[in-house]
Amino acid sequence: MSDETNNEGLNEAPWRATILTLYPDMFPGPLGTSLAGRALENGLWSLDILHIRDFAEGKHRNVDDTPAGGGAGMVLRPDVVGRAIDAATGEGDMRPRILLSPRGKSLTQEKVRSLKEAGGAILLCGRFEGVDQRVIDGRNLEEISIGDYILSGGELGAMVLMDAVVRLLPGVMGKVASGEDESFESGLLEYPHYTRPTIWEGHEIPEILASGHHGKIAQWRHEQAVALTKERRPDLYEAWEAEE
Amino acid sequence: MSDETNNEGLNEAPWRATILTLYPDMFPGPLGTSLAGRALENGLWSLDILHIRDFAEGKHRNVDDTPAGGGAGMVLRPDVVGRAIDAATGEGDMRPRILLSPRGKSLTQEKVRSLKEAGGAILLCGRFEGVDQRVIDGRNLEEISIGDYILSGGELGAMVLMDAVVRLLPGVMGKVASGEDESFESGLLEYPHYTRPTIWEGHEIPEILASGHHGKIAQWRHEQAVALTKERRPDLYEAWEAEE
Repeated sequence: MSDETNNEGLNEAPWRATILTLYPDMFPGPLGTSLAGRALENGLWSLDILHIRDFAEGKHRNVDDTPAGGGAGMVLRPDVVGRAIDAATGEGDMRPRILLSPRGKSLTQEKVRSLKEAGGAILLCGRFEGVDQRVIDGRNLEEISIGDYILSGGELGAMVLMDAVVRLLPGVMGKVASGEDESFESGLLEYPHYTRPTIWEGHEIPEILASGHHGKIAQWRHEQAVALTKERRPDLYEAWEAEE
Repeated sequence: MSDETNNEGLNEAPWRATILTLYPDMFPGPLGTSLAGRALENGLWSLDILHIRDFAEGKHRNVDDTPAGGGAGMVLRPDVVGRAIDAATGEGDMRPRILLSPRGKSLTQEKVRSLKEAGGAILLCGRFEGVDQRVIDGRNLEEISIGDYILSGGELGAMVLMDAVVRLLPGVMGKVASGEDESFESGLLEYPHYTRPTIWEGHEIPEILASGHHGKIAQWRHEQAVALTKERRPDLYEAWEAEE
């Protein structure tokens, strides 16, 4: 893998994540290795974990209860979650407070960039049927969904969100691989890539790529990106075409 | 949390995932705990990890090389990836072969259900700029994206996909919480949830939920779900309205 790093960003305040979860042992998990792990070690971002159960009261330290009005599953209690959020939030702490939930607005690369600019985030990982609506409203939680599918909890969603933000932080990726021409940054999916060997199982790399003609290569890649986006993601294609 | 489980599914062949990655230590990671972890221990699904680097050759065991035609980043070599896929694929192995990539079709709950029915999957985790297109075509890889944002690699995507599938496997969740009325299963986002205490910070649970009138409660919840979907996800709302 590429070991290029740069020192950009080392003087900035680290991007600061605070996680509220019932599974504190899941963290940092995959974010403890590779790009995000190295950036964590280097102090480019920080990760605080609060265990929601520590804010439960009573003999059984219940964090959840049955849904009012009936129905399946259990709902996280507003009092427990409220205390956890208050503990996560320092005075003057303006970080966005996010609940990872399939009911949320879809996470996009644009939202990732705005969360990076916000300097950090408080991330509440939902579990069970959901979270009491009163604490979502009362603590001004923004619901975000990482995709149109159901997970067993918000922990993987929090990791996905953090990974997407962290790779954009100055100093995390090499300048060479700054991701400027990647999918979504241009509104199109990426063109196909090729590398050595020149012939693999009888298949050659497209001739144009060996031409050395940078203008023609750029044009070919652009055409490939447009065709792929039109085929796979008509929704993105239409949005891109409307912008042109 | 709910400890309800059932024995459904214990006699079926486990759902079988094989991961190809440059970061084998990331697995099972978050999937080793909670619902998915218990199901893994109980043999309801299985997880094999292959390290892509084990299929590299030569003194430096390079897995990647510079993009043909120039450009930033590195591209995974087709020969190395091809050998790794072949090693993952047993004779008569009809499992779908998936490349986690932002260029892919979007993962949906419908796709999750079809992957569950397929009995397993081979999941290639992309890294760097991408994977040589010839091996994507030559090994018939299906590209899937978990969302419209860029991650540092496909590992978190693979975990998200597996978590979504595993929670649907028979015997993993209690029957009570089988997720039938959750977001996307009905084409709508979920209605708001409430639980104890009845009054929290001066806010009461909506009166209707204490009425005991199941029909009216169901109607209220449906109206809430429709209004929320319309506000947050006009795309889903339009699709739902067209179906009605």
